[in-house]
Amino acid sequence: MSAATHSDVRTTAEAARRASRLLAPSSEAARNNVLESMAHALESATTKLMAANSEDLRIASSLIGEEALSSATLSRLKLTEAKLCEMAEQMRSVAALPDPLNRTLDAIELDNANPRAIASKGTGSSPSIRATLQKGALAPEATSTKHPLPSTLYALPSASPGLHLEKLSVPLGVLAVIFEARPDAVTQIAALAIKSGNAAILKPGREVEHTATALINILREALTSAGLPANALSLVLGRERAAELLTMHSLIDMVIPRGSKQLVEYVQANTRIPVLGHSEGVCHIYVDAAADQQLALRVIADAKTDYPAACNAVETVLVHEAIADDFLPQLASTLAAYKVELHGDDRTIDELGSSEVLRVDDWHHEYGDLGISIAVVPSLDAAMDHIHRYGSSHTESIITEDIAAAERFLREVDAAGVFHNASTRFADGFRYGFGAEVGISTSKFHARGPVGLEGLTTYKYVLRGAGHIAADYRGPNARAFTHRRENR
Amino acid sequence: MSAATHSDVRTTAEAARRASRLLAPSSEAARNNVLESMAHALESATTKLMAANSEDLRIASSLIGEEALSSATLSRLKLTEAKLCEMAEQMRSVAALPDPLNRTLDAIELDNANPRAIASKGTGSSPSIRATLQKGALAPEATSTKHPLPSTLYALPSASPGLHLEKLSVPLGVLAVIFEARPDAVTQIAALAIKSGNAAILKPGREVEHTATALINILREALTSAGLPANALSLVLGRERAAELLTMHSLIDMVIPRGSKQLVEYVQANTRIPVLGHSEGVCHIYVDAAADQQLALRVIADAKTDYPAACNAVETVLVHEAIADDFLPQLASTLAAYKVELHGDDRTIDELGSSEVLRVDDWHHEYGDLGISIAVVPSLDAAMDHIHRYGSSHTESIITEDIAAAERFLREVDAAGVFHNASTRFADGFRYGFGAEVGISTSKFHARGPVGLEGLTTYKYVLRGAGHIAADYRGPNARAFTHRRENR
Repeated sequence: MSAATHSDVRTTAEAARRASRLLAPSSEAARNNVLESMAHALESATTKLMAANSEDLRIASSLIGEEALSSATLSRLKLTEAKLCEMAEQMRSVAALPDPLNRTLDAIELDNANPRAIASKGTGSSPSIRATLQKGALAPEATSTKHPLPSTLYALPSASPGLHLEKLSVPLGVLAVIFEARPDAVTQIAALAIKSGNAAILKPGREVEHTATALINILREALTSAGLPANALSLVLGRERAAELLTMHSLIDMVIPRGSKQLVEYVQANTRIPVLGHSEGVCHIYVDAAADQQLALRVIADAKTDYPAACNAVETVLVHEAIADDFLPQLASTLAAYKVELHGDDRTIDELGSSEVLRVDDWHHEYGDLGISIAVVPSLDAAMDHIHRYGSSHTESIITEDIAAAERFLREVDAAGVFHNASTRFADGFRYGFGAEVGISTSKFHARGPVGLEGLTTYKYVLRGAGHIAADYRGPNARAFTHRRENR
Repeated sequence: MSAATHSDVRTTAEAARRASRLLAPSSEAARNNVLESMAHALESATTKLMAANSEDLRIASSLIGEEALSSATLSRLKLTEAKLCEMAEQMRSVAALPDPLNRTLDAIELDNANPRAIASKGTGSSPSIRATLQKGALAPEATSTKHPLPSTLYALPSASPGLHLEKLSVPLGVLAVIFEARPDAVTQIAALAIKSGNAAILKPGREVEHTATALINILREALTSAGLPANALSLVLGRERAAELLTMHSLIDMVIPRGSKQLVEYVQANTRIPVLGHSEGVCHIYVDAAADQQLALRVIADAKTDYPAACNAVETVLVHEAIADDFLPQLASTLAAYKVELHGDDRTIDELGSSEVLRVDDWHHEYGDLGISIAVVPSLDAAMDHIHRYGSSHTESIITEDIAAAERFLREVDAAGVFHNASTRFADGFRYGFGAEVGISTSKFHARGPVGLEGLTTYKYVLRGAGHIAADYRGPNARAFTHRRENR
């Protein structure tokens, strides 16, 4: 852990960029094999890793006063043999996922003929190019004495003649991941990055620096042994260096902040690099007039209590006024069994009593614990207005047996997830079946909702021709594009 | 054109956001019909539009000195009956494109059973929720006396039972488009926005303000007549207001700057809103040792001269040293016929003479005219290094008959377009068959390369359940997700 200098971070980022160029074209087998080797190496280095972790734990437990860590943080920080095994297993399970790279996302035939065929028919070639052809400067036929055309001219570069466009999935390039004090985050990020052909620069929480360094060294050795660039994974330590990383938009393709709302907002406000993630999850459940109320209670209890700290936990319940008298007391009794603290609007307080319900002062509040806001609304439209005004476009659910109302909600609500008769807690990459989750995005750009490996890729257009030129496709004798979609 | 105040722009943006919520769920027919009405309205308002345009032209031609407009700009600014017809036709052709919205991008069955079936089998429900069920607070069975369950409990909300996830294409929301002094840009942007269900705030070049105002008023009337929100299209005038727009990242989902490199760079540096576009196009053609040289000459001439100001015109030719002696003189003679000005490295100057070739001082230069840079490189790897170092990740082409070299280039070069034996000029939404082009993106985020209507959409995850809760899917009696991909 040497002193931070500006050139340090830039050197690291430049090395990561170069490594990403070598990693991107690597085969699926090479990427999977190195993940297997990494898993094995983790299991073989238990002693070394536990020693590094002990050093982090020693420093962490010596912190006092405001600096002292909570027992939950200490427990997340602590490496055990069982946790190491899990980390290795997780790397293997990422290796087992389908390859997100080199997938043909689309294929379009632009033309089914080659330039020689075009030229011999006398169509194509713009006037200016035809003029030059006649002057003999580059004409395939006219220059035959000076530059005789080999018989292989315009040989087919691919199986079929013509001009063929392919949209191919490729890695983003270099990821910068800023995360909290968890040893398992290191291996998880590494696995996702390598699987998707990206280089990653990791900035771990300060409390886990020794462990992260030991882990990264092992993973880098595995890359080197496999003939892949070690710099595909690197570490940057310290807040100042993280801030420098955020300025390097020509070297880093995406930042993933994993941690507090404050961290995410800081990153979003301080970089031109695209940020994947979300700063908040203010999710709503709207209980419609035509709701099955028992179903509503079951879903709300799950959405609030299954894991209250999660971003997909419900924060606000909106109840249609037509059923408020009947439903609110049941809701209060159900949530009381889970020790949920109720906050409400005037109507809810009137209904349940001010001793049971606190007044809501901020409808945008994310409790992250067993608090919940309750409002009574006059209509589906009012519910959707409330959601658009106070929600964070994360996940919104309607409970109703009225299919028309449900379909309006699903269609009109603008959020990453819109659910009918289901708990907001399903908004999760594993539950959606993505295999691995990079994060959950409330942005509409690039990726939205739970993001799997696909979110770490982009695409490029590959065009295979045989000397095709644009001038042949305009002007009075223009050839027409065929634009025939080819089998995917 | 009233005075700009902060509340003006914010009010406009808020109105656009509300309009976008109404436009998003509109039917394909409604959006197509209003585009047809708009086209008709343009043709019917020729007199009014020409009068507004005359005012712009009068002001424009009165500008003197540094402020004076070029004849090219004046000609783009001028509205003619023929141009109006073209603008109307373009709106109709956008209407005729396939709907980019409400496409099922993916569909996954998460479970094929409903909670009632789950509960009756005694599996599912986490311990805590089961405990509560037993306490009778929300148990479907246990509470039957207090809250008798209707027989429709957990009725199927959709055709098939279970929990079903759908990934559905939806509009981005609100677009801000900053563009130059072209009347046709107004109608083109309006058509693309409405077709894709987005509201758009247009900031036209100052020279076209009267024409743009008259056009937008006609388009807004058509929206109103069709029962769609007029505020789906609005105008913001003046540089200060454009700067304010860029600060409103909670109201605007995407900025599209159309204009100079300076404009794009200014926008990129001054907003947290995602920007679609590119500031430069430094495209390369690499002529490999195994190139068909006549084919190379034809492609290079096209790529440089077909439309030199375009971003997909070639700026630099890289020539393998093994063929440099033979190829460079032919290249010089071909390009001389087009009056292309040659700039080169030492080797090129040695070969062609310093009277014919200027020395390149910046390999990153985008000529935008009939200038071209030429470098001799020792290998394919050196060519790719040069491209990664000086290119803008726009479009890169290799000319070779060696398929292995071509495939390495296509795989390893990191750019929006990688071409084999084809002119860089094909990098274009119309040529790719997208029907309409929003712009060309050199970013890797969201959309890359030529961007069609799809680039103006995002997606949302729609989940349809029957009271499904997350707790049923974890713990010792967890149900397993089926994660079965359903027909698209």
